[in-house]
Amino acid sequence: MNTKFRDKPAAYPARGADGKPLKPLPQVLLDRRATAHFKPDSVPEEYLEAMLRFGTQAPSGYNLQPWRFLVVREKENRQRLKTAAFGQQKIAEAPVVIIAYAIQNDWRNYFDDILEEGVRRGCTSRDTLPELKQQAANFLEKQISQSVWLNRQTMIAVTSMMLLAGTFGLDTAPMEGFDPSAIGRAFGLPENVEVIALLAVGFARDPEKPYGGRLDLSEIVHDEHFGRPWVGHGDDNAHDSSRRMFDQIRRQANEPYLPAPME
Amino acid sequence: MNTKFRDKPAAYPARGADGKPLKPLPQVLLDRRATAHFKPDSVPEEYLEAMLRFGTQAPSGYNLQPWRFLVVREKENRQRLKTAAFGQQKIAEAPVVIIAYAIQNDWRNYFDDILEEGVRRGCTSRDTLPELKQQAANFLEKQISQSVWLNRQTMIAVTSMMLLAGTFGLDTAPMEGFDPSAIGRAFGLPENVEVIALLAVGFARDPEKPYGGRLDLSEIVHDEHFGRPWVGHGDDNAHDSSRRMFDQIRRQANEPYLPAPME
Repeated sequence: MNTKFRDKPAAYPARGADGKPLKPLPQVLLDRRATAHFKPDSVPEEYLEAMLRFGTQAPSGYNLQPWRFLVVREKENRQRLKTAAFGQQKIAEAPVVIIAYAIQNDWRNYFDDILEEGVRRGCTSRDTLPELKQQAANFLEKQISQSVWLNRQTMIAVTSMMLLAGTFGLDTAPMEGFDPSAIGRAFGLPENVEVIALLAVGFARDPEKPYGGRLDLSEIVHDEHFGRPWVGHGDDNAHDSSRRMFDQIRRQANEPYLPAPME
Repeated sequence: MNTKFRDKPAAYPARGADGKPLKPLPQVLLDRRATAHFKPDSVPEEYLEAMLRFGTQAPSGYNLQPWRFLVVREKENRQRLKTAAFGQQKIAEAPVVIIAYAIQNDWRNYFDDILEEGVRRGCTSRDTLPELKQQAANFLEKQISQSVWLNRQTMIAVTSMMLLAGTFGLDTAPMEGFDPSAIGRAFGLPENVEVIALLAVGFARDPEKPYGGRLDLSEIVHDEHFGRPWVGHGDDNAHDSSRRMFDQIRRQANEPYLPAPME
């Protein structure tokens, strides 16, 4: 192989596609919903490019970066993708849909080059290569289901892209309802592919539907040992304690992204 | 069941644990490395709480939120976790290590209550419940490996927490090298558990090791069809084109997080 590598991106958009300042990540997480319908407006090229470049700065086991993406923008192809995804209308509507997938055992084709690149950059010592190779082979071939591993790594990059889109003022819909074989046939993916997620990107057509709520932290977080539910600092709905908990929050008009009071 | 739900958090820290403004997400992705060694300094409670509250705003299939977390801070417990994770020193060093896991089939225990909460909040129409339940059961029991599904969903929340930590000026190390059974025994996890990732959180002790590089987008992104490598807008290393591509980037001292030029 003669693998091409790249350095970190040298710049990123200072404002979102909506002209607003980049949205802080906590606010992205508050505002983000799975968009049901998209406007036809296209995603400016530089934001799509930034999603791909920065999303793939994500970490992965042994830096193997097993995530692969297929970007679908042509109308006819979105139509074909929609057909392979149980007719979900938003796939035909969104200006961009990213197919996230991974190829079983493909890591073997890249590992030597990735290790060499690490040595070249002073990140990995050449002395450790035999041990690293042995350790990775043991882990990936014996200790873990490769499907699970590929899904784990790829979701780190997909999530990074989804949240980046939010930072850039874009709306997204992550999807896992599709027929992987039909997608493979429609887009010429290799036999040993694992289709992991679809991510539609664009601008929401309608106001998002109401928030569905989340399980209380006491239901899902344990403290030191299973069976000791997380107590934390007061109830999310207890506004006063929740607010005292945090730094003084400035709510001036020039900081539009601090969350509105919820009454 | 009598499941407790919560609303969106009402506030978030306006500054990071380092006293700096929240770091923009693209910069978090540029700066983030898997931290090798941590200082003993503890993570202020409000940042850990915010990671849990905002990270779990992540999306999941049918809003089932199958992710579960066990927060380990006590020294003795971090030592036990280290032993179950092949002796990785950073686990004993980091002030907080989050065990991310999920429980096979546990979604069945929560689904009715989650659907009811969605109806109560006007997010889901009661008419659609029978179809949703049928669809979810079909998907989760017949169409997908549940391990794969649990890993996918949980990694969305884990990644959200990892990036939130970066926004708050904290350092992290995600890990997948551990003995799941040993972790289960040490922390009393149920039999049918899937241990998915560990996330150490704290402050890096040393400067991070050099960047290992990333695969060029032409290696991992295809345009419209497999076999058509992504060309994009110029090489990442071509600073001028990359910079022209984006909005004018302001580099004043009061915007410390725009990336430094890479020469």
